[in-house]
Amino acid sequence: MQDVFSFIEQNREMYIRWLQQICQQPSVAAQNRGMKETANMVEQFITQIGGESKQLETSGYPVVYGEFPGESEKTLSFYNHYDVQPEDPLDLWETPPFGAEIRDGRMYARGVADNKGNLMARLAAVHAYTQVRGKLPTRVKFIVEGEEEIGSVHLEEFVERYHDRIQADGCIWEFGYKNADGRPQVSLGVKGMCYVELVCRGANTDLHSANAAIIENPAWRLLWALNTLKTPDEKIQIKGFYDKVATLSDDDAGMLEQMIYNEESTLEKLGLKSFLLDLSGIPLKEKLIFQPTCTVCGLVSGYTGTGSKTVLPAEARVKLDFRLVPDQDPHEIFSLLRAHLDEHGFSDIEMEGFTLEHPARTPLNNPLTRAVVNTVKDIYGMEPTIMPMSPGTGPMYILCQNLGIPAVSVGVGNFASNNHAPNENVIIEDYIQGIKHMAAIFEEFAKEA
Amino acid sequence: MQDVFSFIEQNREMYIRWLQQICQQPSVAAQNRGMKETANMVEQFITQIGGESKQLETSGYPVVYGEFPGESEKTLSFYNHYDVQPEDPLDLWETPPFGAEIRDGRMYARGVADNKGNLMARLAAVHAYTQVRGKLPTRVKFIVEGEEEIGSVHLEEFVERYHDRIQADGCIWEFGYKNADGRPQVSLGVKGMCYVELVCRGANTDLHSANAAIIENPAWRLLWALNTLKTPDEKIQIKGFYDKVATLSDDDAGMLEQMIYNEESTLEKLGLKSFLLDLSGIPLKEKLIFQPTCTVCGLVSGYTGTGSKTVLPAEARVKLDFRLVPDQDPHEIFSLLRAHLDEHGFSDIEMEGFTLEHPARTPLNNPLTRAVVNTVKDIYGMEPTIMPMSPGTGPMYILCQNLGIPAVSVGVGNFASNNHAPNENVIIEDYIQGIKHMAAIFEEFAKEA
Repeated sequence: MQDVFSFIEQNREMYIRWLQQICQQPSVAAQNRGMKETANMVEQFITQIGGESKQLETSGYPVVYGEFPGESEKTLSFYNHYDVQPEDPLDLWETPPFGAEIRDGRMYARGVADNKGNLMARLAAVHAYTQVRGKLPTRVKFIVEGEEEIGSVHLEEFVERYHDRIQADGCIWEFGYKNADGRPQVSLGVKGMCYVELVCRGANTDLHSANAAIIENPAWRLLWALNTLKTPDEKIQIKGFYDKVATLSDDDAGMLEQMIYNEESTLEKLGLKSFLLDLSGIPLKEKLIFQPTCTVCGLVSGYTGTGSKTVLPAEARVKLDFRLVPDQDPHEIFSLLRAHLDEHGFSDIEMEGFTLEHPARTPLNNPLTRAVVNTVKDIYGMEPTIMPMSPGTGPMYILCQNLGIPAVSVGVGNFASNNHAPNENVIIEDYIQGIKHMAAIFEEFAKEA
Repeated sequence: MQDVFSFIEQNREMYIRWLQQICQQPSVAAQNRGMKETANMVEQFITQIGGESKQLETSGYPVVYGEFPGESEKTLSFYNHYDVQPEDPLDLWETPPFGAEIRDGRMYARGVADNKGNLMARLAAVHAYTQVRGKLPTRVKFIVEGEEEIGSVHLEEFVERYHDRIQADGCIWEFGYKNADGRPQVSLGVKGMCYVELVCRGANTDLHSANAAIIENPAWRLLWALNTLKTPDEKIQIKGFYDKVATLSDDDAGMLEQMIYNEESTLEKLGLKSFLLDLSGIPLKEKLIFQPTCTVCGLVSGYTGTGSKTVLPAEARVKLDFRLVPDQDPHEIFSLLRAHLDEHGFSDIEMEGFTLEHPARTPLNNPLTRAVVNTVKDIYGMEPTIMPMSPGTGPMYILCQNLGIPAVSVGVGNFASNNHAPNENVIIEDYIQGIKHMAAIFEEFAKEA
């Protein structure tokens, strides 16, 4: 691979410019800013490096699809997204969010880590490999959606409509990071999600709080309902919630054992003294990876400004995010939650579902995982840490697991990439290493049985 | 009194114009809009009708003080306020909030019910009485503050500084309403208040909610803390909270018995099927008047916009309003709450106190109460309903009870006056009746032993 690696080194400035170019193009799906321009730009990149590309229409933003021929019929696919999070709060950025300026070896831009850095590293790897060797060892497909940051709202429709285009022998998933100590993480799945909003209503208008002596307060009612959902020992009290949680296999236990999680640096960065329930070591990692959650993401009722206002609220709302693990089913969890509320006397509390996503996993022992893991050592000079599943969520079930496609996450992000936050960044050397790593994966995956 | 009543009738248009004039002058304390202009206007009204007036300075907005001589040394005082609530949400007003337009027998304006209607009715009564009879039967004092809507923040300072000016034999308190059936309410006290904000903090920044598996969520922690404060049977669980709640006297029980509370019309207006805990009758009235409360007035954490955002909040806040009854002490309740949180393992939750006000009561059997009650029948043609205490709060303890001054609330508001809300209004006939009632009270109070 030294020929390809040398080519990458010789062209590093060009690949850095590619990344700057796409990062300087805003693409905020939530605000419909620059979406068409960015989809066109991705399509052009694919075409310019020798692929066939097309924007596949959905009811939302199009998915940019690309295909490259290979020496074999074996197919490796890439799932990425061209949309980014909104850049606010603007005043916390040290350089403009769409400036893509380089400082101290890092490029700073909204979307550079999530997910344009990974997308461009993968395109650059295709470019370098084909320039040096003429043809890729396997066929390669790019599936670059435009709605990941708004919940992949039309991806299920896309999968149904373009079923054929998605088939592959393995898929490199959109994200990937290095640990605090610089060790690459390889992760083999994502948690599922059941994201709901609960609404409790009282009188038809906010009232003077003197009335609270005799008029029910929906904020208290919602608090009491929530209190039945999870106890301070973090046990979720919904009947049947844990029934389908898979027990850990020996492989899982082994992966947890080798998985490196930098406890001290995480606590220090977050200004915390300890993790939840004082966990550490294996139990901490097991909770992070293999346990479902029930998280209050948002809570609002009554007067929330500064100072005091004596109001009896008319309404209280909570946004709850359940992260699910195999083999929990988000639709079933949604129903169990409804049943729980009803059984506890809260049938008046209304429920709205926003995101229902299945968890997904890829086995440790499969050709793609082996190809990714085996190549890490050559490129990074150390073993990766393998996360059996990411604690995050994505549409991996509908794009991969449901179609029998193994999916592996690895990428150019770092421990302090600040995804979704000000000063999002990628370390330039990580980006160049990421290009080399992808090129090496092409070859290794082609060799794998 | 027919001479005075006739004078009032003959001059009704002028008194209505007085009310329009002051209502057309904004006086939003929270926004420092028109405060000086309104204080000057009140001072001028007092002077023009023959009183001596002065703006008594405090560290905040001045208190407009007025004095009128009387036939006897007996003194009746009026506590009112010239500030009003902010008028938003503007789009829900049918006519401009500072237009003071009259439609269908009502004047609509921000502050017309709370509290300018009462202030002007009392000034008009002084004017009418002195025009007809030459001199008032008792001395009369006006204490018109400018910060009632922002918590009477400098009133304690005022009381300390101008102690002498406040002394009186009885005080007519700022507010007063008619029931849904048109029957005047006379109330003999106010609840106290301990208004606090609790803050629970987690990591030093909002995080991706995937981290909630291992990082403590301050929203959950605050929910669990709140759950220890009050159970769904509405019992407040703070140790010692009820210790100083006075037991009902025979007078209290009697007043509850006669007190008319229009349950059906209240439920209908609020779109509710039942009151808290399905209460009705005497137990409902007892809870409203004689029981302390613990109310969530505001609750906020994480993402509260529309749609979903998967965030683990860095912070959660709640605003709590405890309405207190005799002989609870707001400072003691504040300490008991702190002790409760500490004992339940929530010593990290921070507490900020905003308003600490003592409850206050006036006995049923005193000259002022008798004067007010006896005159209602003549003016309104029916007996008043007597509320032993208002479920609301005000600085009655420091202005009256602490100085041995009985205080009685009666006024020109109605059941749907919409205080603090859009389309605040006073019924014109109630305003005219209120002027007559005050004039009658002068005479009756002078006669009382």
